[in-house]
Amino acid sequence: MKQPQITIIATGSEITAGRSIDTNSGWIANRLFEEGWKVRNFIALPDNPKTILEELLLLKRKAENDPDNPILAIMTGGLGSTEDDYTLQTVLDLQNKEREVVEKARIKLQKLIESRGRSYTEILPAMLRQVYVPSGSYTLDNSAGIAVGFAEEIAPSSFLVCMPGVPAEMKEMFNRRLLPFLKRNYGIENLKQTTRWIWSIGESLFQEEFMKNQKDLLSSGMDWGVTAQKGFIKTIFNAKDESLLNEVVSRIQNFYKELCTEDVFTEVHESLSLSRKSLAVAESCTGGLLGAKITDIKGSSAYFLGGVITYSNDQKVGLLGVGGDTIAKFGAVSRETCSEMADGLSDKTNADYSLSITGIAGPDGGTEEKPVGLVWIGRKKKGKPTETFRYLFPGNRETIRENAANTALYLLHQILPEREIK
Amino acid sequence: MKQPQITIIATGSEITAGRSIDTNSGWIANRLFEEGWKVRNFIALPDNPKTILEELLLLKRKAENDPDNPILAIMTGGLGSTEDDYTLQTVLDLQNKEREVVEKARIKLQKLIESRGRSYTEILPAMLRQVYVPSGSYTLDNSAGIAVGFAEEIAPSSFLVCMPGVPAEMKEMFNRRLLPFLKRNYGIENLKQTTRWIWSIGESLFQEEFMKNQKDLLSSGMDWGVTAQKGFIKTIFNAKDESLLNEVVSRIQNFYKELCTEDVFTEVHESLSLSRKSLAVAESCTGGLLGAKITDIKGSSAYFLGGVITYSNDQKVGLLGVGGDTIAKFGAVSRETCSEMADGLSDKTNADYSLSITGIAGPDGGTEEKPVGLVWIGRKKKGKPTETFRYLFPGNRETIRENAANTALYLLHQILPEREIK
Repeated sequence: MKQPQITIIATGSEITAGRSIDTNSGWIANRLFEEGWKVRNFIALPDNPKTILEELLLLKRKAENDPDNPILAIMTGGLGSTEDDYTLQTVLDLQNKEREVVEKARIKLQKLIESRGRSYTEILPAMLRQVYVPSGSYTLDNSAGIAVGFAEEIAPSSFLVCMPGVPAEMKEMFNRRLLPFLKRNYGIENLKQTTRWIWSIGESLFQEEFMKNQKDLLSSGMDWGVTAQKGFIKTIFNAKDESLLNEVVSRIQNFYKELCTEDVFTEVHESLSLSRKSLAVAESCTGGLLGAKITDIKGSSAYFLGGVITYSNDQKVGLLGVGGDTIAKFGAVSRETCSEMADGLSDKTNADYSLSITGIAGPDGGTEEKPVGLVWIGRKKKGKPTETFRYLFPGNRETIRENAANTALYLLHQILPEREIK
Repeated sequence: MKQPQITIIATGSEITAGRSIDTNSGWIANRLFEEGWKVRNFIALPDNPKTILEELLLLKRKAENDPDNPILAIMTGGLGSTEDDYTLQTVLDLQNKEREVVEKARIKLQKLIESRGRSYTEILPAMLRQVYVPSGSYTLDNSAGIAVGFAEEIAPSSFLVCMPGVPAEMKEMFNRRLLPFLKRNYGIENLKQTTRWIWSIGESLFQEEFMKNQKDLLSSGMDWGVTAQKGFIKTIFNAKDESLLNEVVSRIQNFYKELCTEDVFTEVHESLSLSRKSLAVAESCTGGLLGAKITDIKGSSAYFLGGVITYSNDQKVGLLGVGGDTIAKFGAVSRETCSEMADGLSDKTNADYSLSITGIAGPDGGTEEKPVGLVWIGRKKKGKPTETFRYLFPGNRETIRENAANTALYLLHQILPEREIK
């Protein structure tokens, strides 16, 4: 089956005015990539029916003029109930069609409105706009909301898909309804994918020292990508032939050893959940960011006790029992203070694992001896002495703080028991 | 002067594969909006010279065929030194031009390379790619990096602007070099802008209960937008006539009273910095997020002492001195526990202002009586009794936590002394 040229379209004036960031398109591209399709381009358009119609007409003409290269356009947004939701009308104009009601969705909406009582009946007419599609469309049910999605054939084997812009609704609709439709129409390549994280190196060094020597795998059909994260890079490989992926993973692990990990955040979470070990944090320059990252994961209350944010020196002494003389002699950003922070935290909380961070996030406060980016991280396993690690992170305040918090989790990851169900 | 149709183009396979989010385009759109220009659309393209050339040719032909509607295309990315940086070559193909070196940039690069010692001379040839532009281009110096940007006239009064994809470099280049160029070529409308935040309401309610009654201002030339944040909405108004903005601000303040604020994060920071009052936080369900937000702002060490993350009940007792019987009787998520958290924090840190948060972020842990989204926030000014506030935030775990942290800062904002230099 001929693979389509894929365009993802996000509509919304808040996007093209720079007030809101379109995350739907990236999510869709990522899901398509996982299923074996590559995206040609993204387009974002304001809520302006003329502009939207112009762009859709361009795509339709291109598909009509070049039937050997079908187009798949996936559009999000503009299916709501307010005046600036133009998607349905624009598609009706594009296709020269009338609208038709999706009876199942209409009944669901009516029941919902009625259950909310009388005051809602006045908004019913506007809400009803969301349960119409172009006549004869392939309908995409919305299991997480009201607005119905649809797919229109704009040229032979070329489709325009319209879904709501609300991420939760769009994602449900994509996975449950759109994906089966796409597989039927375009087949799948059945691509396998694997990722590895590599710590403390940048993208260009990875390309230079590792990827340059993988020409044999790349010429055999492996594809790769890398994205810089904070403190690590995320490498992604895909291929139809799984043995290529096994080979590259084996090489990457050999080359980078303990710097190569899987998803550290998930593995730390799973390991602590299964082993029933507890964790506490003492944060200075990260100011709560490490705790926020840990508790971002649901279920982290099973092992995360909490900790202290000791942004000022007084609080390092008061809340953690760091020696005032230690800070006076070595400074707040020092191996000694970092070590006493982890010790004090361990004493106060009795956690199985204690992490401490102290550093200079900048932009001010750096010196020649202790520049901006210098961060000490302490790691203590209960009953053992605290180990300390010195880092000099590049970048601005935000980057340094993210680097520090992520790297602390990496250091914890290094000493966790294997993630096995005992 | 005729205003251009503006297209913003981001290049990068990491974007169209969904592995990285394009934030440059939104930033540029926002800056252009502030200067009085509206963007027609965004495009994101993979690092594929054929695709990029195709899109640029479309724009060029459109500009040539419709000289009354000039086009301004602003493209980021693809100006680096690696093999997948195709922008320069593509523009040379588009314009049928040769490249020329930017001598000033070449000398700067050479000096930089030499200063790093011999091992870098082997990478000089690749690096040198970055200091070439199409011959006769308008050059955009890079004060924050190496790669030179440029603007090419693709049709009369229509320009294609190319800038690096590194945000810090692009932003510097935009503000310092591109903006003056655009103002010379397209004039400016000199739009005034103002924003207000409104707490605890959604976008649609704002439209329904407030904006519907502003038709007089809208028909006089005021433009508006709104973006949903976590815990508040951000409303934006612009107009050439400043009195329209003064009028809408006066109406919005009258209508929403204390729920209407300016930028709370900035005002809290400025107020505490100037008044030299100290702040501490005690976080349960937010797990450090509030501290992370506060310390995200440089200079927050002037007033932020730190605090405690008491994710477990034991730590609420151990680190803050909350009564074990209080938790047993009323629960960890209760007015009483929240109040004792703020009291304990105030005792431990002696901060001028103490904030406490305890709630149910979900997805698990909710009951009929205490559903997911229930959050208590405590606010204590030293020497006065703690006040507590009950919220029921909508959304998922992330949204609830963001809502809680932002709203805590809003509650603090309400009792801060006026931000005046005494």
